[in-house]
Amino acid sequence: MQGSHLLAEFFDCQGELDLLNRADRLRDFCLAKVKASGLTVVGENFYQFEPQGATGAIVLAESHFALHTWPEHKYVSLDIFVCNYSRDNTPKAQWLYEQLREVFAPGQVVFQQLERGEVPAKPEQAA
Amino acid sequence: MQGSHLLAEFFDCQGELDLLNRADRLRDFCLAKVKASGLTVVGENFYQFEPQGATGAIVLAESHFALHTWPEHKYVSLDIFVCNYSRDNTPKAQWLYEQLREVFAPGQVVFQQLERGEVPAKPEQAA
Repeated sequence: MQGSHLLAEFFDCQGELDLLNRADRLRDFCLAKVKASGLTVVGENFYQFEPQGATGAIVLAESHFALHTWPEHKYVSLDIFVCNYSRDNTPKAQWLYEQLREVFAPGQVVFQQLERGEVPAKPEQAA
Repeated sequence: MQGSHLLAEFFDCQGELDLLNRADRLRDFCLAKVKASGLTVVGENFYQFEPQGATGAIVLAESHFALHTWPEHKYVSLDIFVCNYSRDNTPKAQWLYEQLREVFAPGQVVFQQLERGEVPAKPEQAA
């Protein structure tokens, strides 16, 4: 059940404006890149904000991909979470992250990678 | 663009087995609880694994909710990410988290809450 979760904030995005503005364009781009990464799409849902901005999630056999755009702030939040149950999918997630980073061309990035799903050595209180 | 992201791992889940096993049951439960939380559903997608297990995402006006179940390990991963642009949605996210925790009844929990979307004080290299 161990998995890797990549979380990113892209600030001051200088990339293609349509991808920030339009859910249909963003959806097509993300689906193509997720498929190219070798991860397995099992569902998706994207929503168009008016007058601009998009939010969406792609459900993966390996977990999920989600992103939210704020064109008026040139900001994008991105999550890629992959389980590594039958194989290590982290390189696919990292490749996908780089594709997104390249196309949004952020001037500033906050990135972190969390390892999830390991049973903690010392039980925490579950009250 | 500031937001709160709640990430949880539920281990040794003792709750209703149908919610771990069946995507349709999980979908109905999650949609009802998200709506009850006061967060705004704008889309959703759930997928049934065979013979058991489910994965799904609910796209929110406020960002997203995603969860993945591993019935054979009594394990659930959960993400609730809400932006706090026009109001502080963190209490709604926390309420929702507690609903999920209650129904899955995990014996052990790993939980963290990340604050996202703040422009870092010192620019990081975006090479």
